[in-house]
Amino acid sequence: MARIVQKYGGTSVADVERIKNVAARIKAIQGEGNELVVVVSARAGVTNELIARAKAVCPMPSEREMDQLLAIGEQETIALTAMALQGMGVNAVSYTGAQAGIFTDTVHTKAKITTIKAKALEKDLKAGKVIIVAGFQGINEEGQVTTLGRGGSDLTAIALAAAIRADKCEIYTDVDGVYTADPRVVKDARKLAEISYDEMLELASLGSKVMQSRSVEFAAKYNVVFEVRSSFNQNPGTIVKQEVAYMEKVLVRGVAVDKDQAKVVISNITDRPGSAAKVFRALANAHINVDMIVQNVGRAGIANLTFTVPLSEKDKAVRALEPALREVGGEAAFDEAIAKLSVVGVGMKTHSGVAATLFQTLADAGINLELISTSEIKISVVIKKDRADDAARAAHAAFGLDKL
Amino acid sequence: MARIVQKYGGTSVADVERIKNVAARIKAIQGEGNELVVVVSARAGVTNELIARAKAVCPMPSEREMDQLLAIGEQETIALTAMALQGMGVNAVSYTGAQAGIFTDTVHTKAKITTIKAKALEKDLKAGKVIIVAGFQGINEEGQVTTLGRGGSDLTAIALAAAIRADKCEIYTDVDGVYTADPRVVKDARKLAEISYDEMLELASLGSKVMQSRSVEFAAKYNVVFEVRSSFNQNPGTIVKQEVAYMEKVLVRGVAVDKDQAKVVISNITDRPGSAAKVFRALANAHINVDMIVQNVGRAGIANLTFTVPLSEKDKAVRALEPALREVGGEAAFDEAIAKLSVVGVGMKTHSGVAATLFQTLADAGINLELISTSEIKISVVIKKDRADDAARAAHAAFGLDKL
Repeated sequence: MARIVQKYGGTSVADVERIKNVAARIKAIQGEGNELVVVVSARAGVTNELIARAKAVCPMPSEREMDQLLAIGEQETIALTAMALQGMGVNAVSYTGAQAGIFTDTVHTKAKITTIKAKALEKDLKAGKVIIVAGFQGINEEGQVTTLGRGGSDLTAIALAAAIRADKCEIYTDVDGVYTADPRVVKDARKLAEISYDEMLELASLGSKVMQSRSVEFAAKYNVVFEVRSSFNQNPGTIVKQEVAYMEKVLVRGVAVDKDQAKVVISNITDRPGSAAKVFRALANAHINVDMIVQNVGRAGIANLTFTVPLSEKDKAVRALEPALREVGGEAAFDEAIAKLSVVGVGMKTHSGVAATLFQTLADAGINLELISTSEIKISVVIKKDRADDAARAAHAAFGLDKL
Repeated sequence: MARIVQKYGGTSVADVERIKNVAARIKAIQGEGNELVVVVSARAGVTNELIARAKAVCPMPSEREMDQLLAIGEQETIALTAMALQGMGVNAVSYTGAQAGIFTDTVHTKAKITTIKAKALEKDLKAGKVIIVAGFQGINEEGQVTTLGRGGSDLTAIALAAAIRADKCEIYTDVDGVYTADPRVVKDARKLAEISYDEMLELASLGSKVMQSRSVEFAAKYNVVFEVRSSFNQNPGTIVKQEVAYMEKVLVRGVAVDKDQAKVVISNITDRPGSAAKVFRALANAHINVDMIVQNVGRAGIANLTFTVPLSEKDKAVRALEPALREVGGEAAFDEAIAKLSVVGVGMKTHSGVAATLFQTLADAGINLELISTSEIKISVVIKKDRADDAARAAHAAFGLDKL
C-alpha cells in the first residue's frame, strides 16, 4: 500500500466524460489498496470564462474579488469528481483549499503557501476515503480565499505530497513526460525516464511548457519526488528527483527552444557607474523579466547593453526604458525575430567541451550566434528565429540525444 | 443613516448587465449615507446547470457534494457584484456564507441556521464597506459547506438582518410586492402596503410564489420587519411585520389560488382506531405534505378520508399509500382537476360571516365546494380547477379587495 498524491490538469477534467475517465483511473489505483489524495484544476476554459465575466462588470477588479471568483472553477471540479467516484461506488469526499487547510500569505492572485494543516484530510484518508482537493487555491489567516497563480495546481499537489509524506506524487497533464526536445520539432526526441530538479528547473525557465519553475523549486526544497505523465494513456512518464543516475558520457539531458523572446540592444550609453543599474531598475519596477544580459565596453567608454525580454512584455519594456534612456543617454533597438536555444544537463558540471560542441554544430549549420549565456548546467544562445528548429535538430543529434 | 440588508434574487442578477443595474441601485442607497449588507442569489439558471452536470456524472450524488457544488453559484455572484461596485468607485467586499459566519446544522441541502458570527462583517461594515453576502449557503461546525434549501437566500437576508440588528430588510424579487390576488388572474388586484407575518405565512403556504414560509416564520420569530419589492423598478413594495394597522371592516387581506394540488379520497376504510394514523404515517415517511384533511364516518363504521397533496408528489403518494391500504383496507382515488382557493385575513379572528360570504359568492357563481378547511385567519375550499380563476375574481370582489 502506498500513499499517493495525483494531480489532474484542466484538459484532463474538461467535461463530464473526461471527469468520469479520471474517476475510473482513480478507482483502479485505489482498488490496488493505495491511499489517494487527488488534486484537480478547473475545467479547461472555465477560468477564462470567469475572467471575461469579471472584466465585463469591472475593468480593474480587486485581486481579492478575483480570487473569490476564480476559486469556484476548482470547487466545481472537486464536487463533480467526488460525485463521479461515488457513482462508481468509491467513497470519495471533496475539499476546497480552505477545507484542506492550505494556508497562504495574503498576496491575492499569486499567494505563497505558508503552511498546510492536514488534520481533517488525514482523518478522512485513514477512514479509507479518496480525497479530492481543489488545486490553485488556499485561504489566508483572515479566512479570505487566495489563489496561487499560474501552475498553482501543480504546487498544491507537491505541497500536499510534502505535508502528508506521500510515497508518490503524480502530475497528470496533456503531455506524457519530459522530452529531450520538443517532439513536434525534433522527430527523434525521446522521453526521459528521469530528470533532476535542477535540469527540470532550467527547462521550465527556458520555455518548456510542462511545468512552472515554482512547483519544481518547491519540490526540490522539500525533496518531493514526482512523476509527470499523461492522463490520456497508461504510459510511464518522467520522474523528477534530486539525483539522477546517468552515464558519465551523458552531458546534455535536453534541448529547449524559446521563441517568445525579444532581443533588446541599448547602444551608446556613457559608461558611468550606475548607468546599467538605472536601466535594469526601470525594467524591474515594471516587473519585466530580463535574461541573458551582456555588456560590452567599447572605445572611449561607450558601452552597449544587450539582453532579452519575453515577447509579451516588449511593449511594456519600450515604455519602461524611455525615461531611463533620457537620463543615461543611449538608444534602444528591439529585435523580435530571435529565439533562444538552450542545452541543459547536470553532466556539464564536470565536463568541458559542451559549449565548443554546441557552437561548432551551429556554425556547421550556418547559424549565427547573437548572444551567449551560460550557467553551471546550461548553455543558451540567441539565434535567428527562422533557424531555431534547424538548430534544435542539429544540437539534439550532436549530443546523441536521439540514441540511448 | 440606516443599516439596511437587501436581498436580490436570481433573476435580478441573471447576467452581467443586470448585475451592473443592481450595483447602481446599491451605490445610490449607500450614497445616501446608509450601511449596506447585500445578499445575492446565484444567477438565474446556474443552479439548474450545475444540477444537470452533477446528474451527468452520478445519478445519486451525496448531498454533501451537492452542497459543495451548488455553493459556487452564489460565490460567483458575490464576486461579480462586488467587482461591479468597485468599477463604480464603491468600496465593496464579498463574503461567502462561511466568511459571513453563517453557521448551520449538518443537514446538507436543507440546513437550518444555528448561529451567525458576524464579527468580521461588522468590522467591514463599520469601515464603510458595502458587504455582499452569498445567499442560500452556510458552513457547519466541521467546516463543510451547507445549503439552506428552497428560498434559502431570503432566509440568509432575514437572519443577517436579525443578527446585525438592521433597521430595514428589503427582499428584491421579480414581483413588486404582495397583491390581494394574482394580478394575472384578477385584474383589479391591488398591491398591499402592509401585511402581517401570519397573513403572509398563510399566503406563502397557499401557493403565493412570493416567498417560502420558513423565511417568514424566521422573520416572525425574530421580529424582522421586511419589505418585498421589485429590483426592476422603484415602486414601493409590501412591508411585512407583526402588527398591521387596518380598518375594522377589512376582513380579508387577499385571495390565493393553488392549482398545484391533487385531491385524494380514500374510501371504505374500516373505522378502527389507528387506521387514519397508518395512512398519514405512510405519507409522512415519504415526506409528502398533506393538507385539508377531512374524515367522514358513515354508516356501519365505514369511513372516508379526503385530503390534498402537492401535484408534484402525487405519484409518490400513490406508491406510499399502497402498503398502508393493504393493511387498513380501503381504496384510493386521485383527482388532479382541482384547485385550492383561500381567503386570508387577520380580521377574521374577530368577525364572523366571512365563511358565509365566501360560500354564498361561490354558490352564486355556480361553483361547487368539494372540501372546506378553516383556520383562525383563513378559509380554504377545494373546487374544480377550471373554475378557480372565476372563483378568485368573484371572491376578490365580494370582499371589496378591488376598492380602498
